[in-house]
Amino acid sequence: MPRRPNLFYAQSGGVTAVINASAAGVLAAARRHRDAIGHVYAGENGILGLLEESLFDLSREPASAVEALRRLPGSAFGSSRYPLGTPASHPQNYARLIDVLRAHDIRWFLYNGGGGSAGTALHMASAARAAGYPLSVIHIPKTVDNDMAGTDFAPGFGSVAKYTAVSVREAALDVASMRRTSTQVFVMEVMGRHAGWIAAASALAQDGDGQGAPHLILFPEVPFDEAGFLAKVEATLAREGYCVIVTAEGLAIHNPALQAQGPDTAADAHGKDRLNVHTGKAAPYLADLIHCRLGVRCHYSVSDYLQRSARHIASTVDVDAAFRCGEAAVELALAGEDRVMAGLRRVTGARRVRFEIAPAPLARVAAREVTLPRNFISRDGYGITARCRAYLLPLIQGEDYPPFQAGLPRYLPLRMEKAARRLSPFAPAAD
Amino acid sequence: MPRRPNLFYAQSGGVTAVINASAAGVLAAARRHRDAIGHVYAGENGILGLLEESLFDLSREPASAVEALRRLPGSAFGSSRYPLGTPASHPQNYARLIDVLRAHDIRWFLYNGGGGSAGTALHMASAARAAGYPLSVIHIPKTVDNDMAGTDFAPGFGSVAKYTAVSVREAALDVASMRRTSTQVFVMEVMGRHAGWIAAASALAQDGDGQGAPHLILFPEVPFDEAGFLAKVEATLAREGYCVIVTAEGLAIHNPALQAQGPDTAADAHGKDRLNVHTGKAAPYLADLIHCRLGVRCHYSVSDYLQRSARHIASTVDVDAAFRCGEAAVELALAGEDRVMAGLRRVTGARRVRFEIAPAPLARVAAREVTLPRNFISRDGYGITARCRAYLLPLIQGEDYPPFQAGLPRYLPLRMEKAARRLSPFAPAAD
Repeated sequence: MPRRPNLFYAQSGGVTAVINASAAGVLAAARRHRDAIGHVYAGENGILGLLEESLFDLSREPASAVEALRRLPGSAFGSSRYPLGTPASHPQNYARLIDVLRAHDIRWFLYNGGGGSAGTALHMASAARAAGYPLSVIHIPKTVDNDMAGTDFAPGFGSVAKYTAVSVREAALDVASMRRTSTQVFVMEVMGRHAGWIAAASALAQDGDGQGAPHLILFPEVPFDEAGFLAKVEATLAREGYCVIVTAEGLAIHNPALQAQGPDTAADAHGKDRLNVHTGKAAPYLADLIHCRLGVRCHYSVSDYLQRSARHIASTVDVDAAFRCGEAAVELALAGEDRVMAGLRRVTGARRVRFEIAPAPLARVAAREVTLPRNFISRDGYGITARCRAYLLPLIQGEDYPPFQAGLPRYLPLRMEKAARRLSPFAPAAD
Repeated sequence: MPRRPNLFYAQSGGVTAVINASAAGVLAAARRHRDAIGHVYAGENGILGLLEESLFDLSREPASAVEALRRLPGSAFGSSRYPLGTPASHPQNYARLIDVLRAHDIRWFLYNGGGGSAGTALHMASAARAAGYPLSVIHIPKTVDNDMAGTDFAPGFGSVAKYTAVSVREAALDVASMRRTSTQVFVMEVMGRHAGWIAAASALAQDGDGQGAPHLILFPEVPFDEAGFLAKVEATLAREGYCVIVTAEGLAIHNPALQAQGPDTAADAHGKDRLNVHTGKAAPYLADLIHCRLGVRCHYSVSDYLQRSARHIASTVDVDAAFRCGEAAVELALAGEDRVMAGLRRVTGARRVRFEIAPAPLARVAAREVTLPRNFISRDGYGITARCRAYLLPLIQGEDYPPFQAGLPRYLPLRMEKAARRLSPFAPAAD
């Protein structure tokens, strides 16, 4: 067999419950093309692994590695938020990347990330082209926030949507059953950054006609109206005897007034500014507000990483989509495609919705952020429309339970063997 | 058939993911004894339903009601934290309770609650005896906090233990995979009131020898040593590159210094004292502390009600135990027992641990609070011992998944028909 070039795969940005299913898809497809692809390398800590020439050689993994990856939450190889800069601002970083690609004869660069990472992938492609290095750059979509262009949904979102809908339905039953003598208001904070997709998914816990809990949803796309919100809470309490609220973490981001008042921006017990994190801001703030203004008992939850790593309640549609995007990225690479993303297109059939692979030009994906369209949000701003429900519902179908052993999810071992280094060390320059 | 006396069942205090499985057990056993038991009444909102003569007649439910109850989280009939007082302090309340019992010919009083509720059950028994009213009082254990005497474990705890271990394992994989360029410390707050049982259960996510995440567990039973804790966090960061911490909500309760400093006790943005809730105190406090003192990125989660209502990841051992305690309570009642609890006894066999019903005198259960024994906590105070692990592990075995429909748990309908009132209304006097 002639010497075959190699493939590089890396994960980027915040991880999801199913990002490793995309890695599984990459590995499965690459193994079907042993005639064309030599080694499959995965970057340790994402793009940093390429910069530092720290590469896991997935070709040395046993056949069970595909299944091992398919069920493992988090990032199997480490992900990264490393600020690489651009080829113009940080040419030494890109020169190094190409040195490592060349040293390991890597001709395919598969990058698994969100919109920001797609921009990095484009920079990589430009740098390779400028250096005359033949490289095919393919992006694999991923983000729990679902704020990506170029794909019907981002793998990772379906599972966090399912976790959110299941969790709020369960918690609402708890609160409803205690309303007479205990907590009347429950505020659940969910992720999503600047977009309200995850918050919207909580509405799937309502009845089909939008009745029931959660009673109010706060989206970052809707300016926060404190008086209007409190009136809605009061009306819900009067009608139902309890009120379940879901708030996007991003509520504060678009609402300077809330941000300024929120406990997160106050000096903490140690006289320093509180941590500038997204999560954990909105729910305690709202719980305080409701307690102080309405005088009712209030609890809140902030699931934070629990939601985006909840592989135990992953959606089958989501896991399958993640896997197929990984497979498709390999096929696109072998077909000579470049600067495209293996996106998803929805096909609405008579009996069910299914998803096909639809390549999207990376330039239409990079650095774009897709928030909830106005016609997905109900007129009063506190719920979703039938159109939004129809969009969301197919994404949470099926329960892809991981196998359990002795009461806990059973993870299969990976060998995680490194490829031998061929270059001297490099000190990356952060943006 | 001669006229048969009736049975009353009520849920009390904070609910669990499996408390309705005990109701299912009561109903299943009562239906096997139709010769002896007339109606099965459930109190709406617990004991308040008896005071207010608001009784669901479960005898009118279809056969599917047993299965419907077995899989429903929260409290099917409403639970209550109503402060009934004692027969001495609030004789009018107890006189009313006996009036309602008499009006509906109720001879068996089954109360499903924790240690505090067991005290109420004892008061009920005393009042009946003093009034010369023939009543058999049987308690059914329940609490996620697992702080009850008279039973190997409290149904409800096994499922929250499983939720906690699964969730922290998943989140730890997430944090580990991002440690190089993102969050290094994750703090997960769990319930448990004054006891560290749920916090201890998080250790089941570690390897069998206690290695791995969570790296540090903070118990209410161990005084909080800020300097020692921060040194442990630093050492873990130096060794692992990340640190996952589980803290009991009760950490602040036994630590006045932490309580005084915590953000929960400070005046909030509206100039009023923050809500005096248990949950949501410890984790934000610790996240601030670590961020400010060690300068590392820190996230936190507060699952709050999500953890105690997480029926989707309930433990089979726990669901079965809850059901069998409910069944056993009926059998004990029919056997003429009084002032006992249908507790659980552990039987360690050659191949597996199983649980038998072991009646416990209510006087040994009521108002007692069982915290983690010292020999369940590791010498350094931040982990559990092998003895504790051996105690906990059998409780999280098996996955009792509810059936799903269209992506969400499918709940079966209950008729929830009320028994006709026979008395005039009553205004209860709270303690």
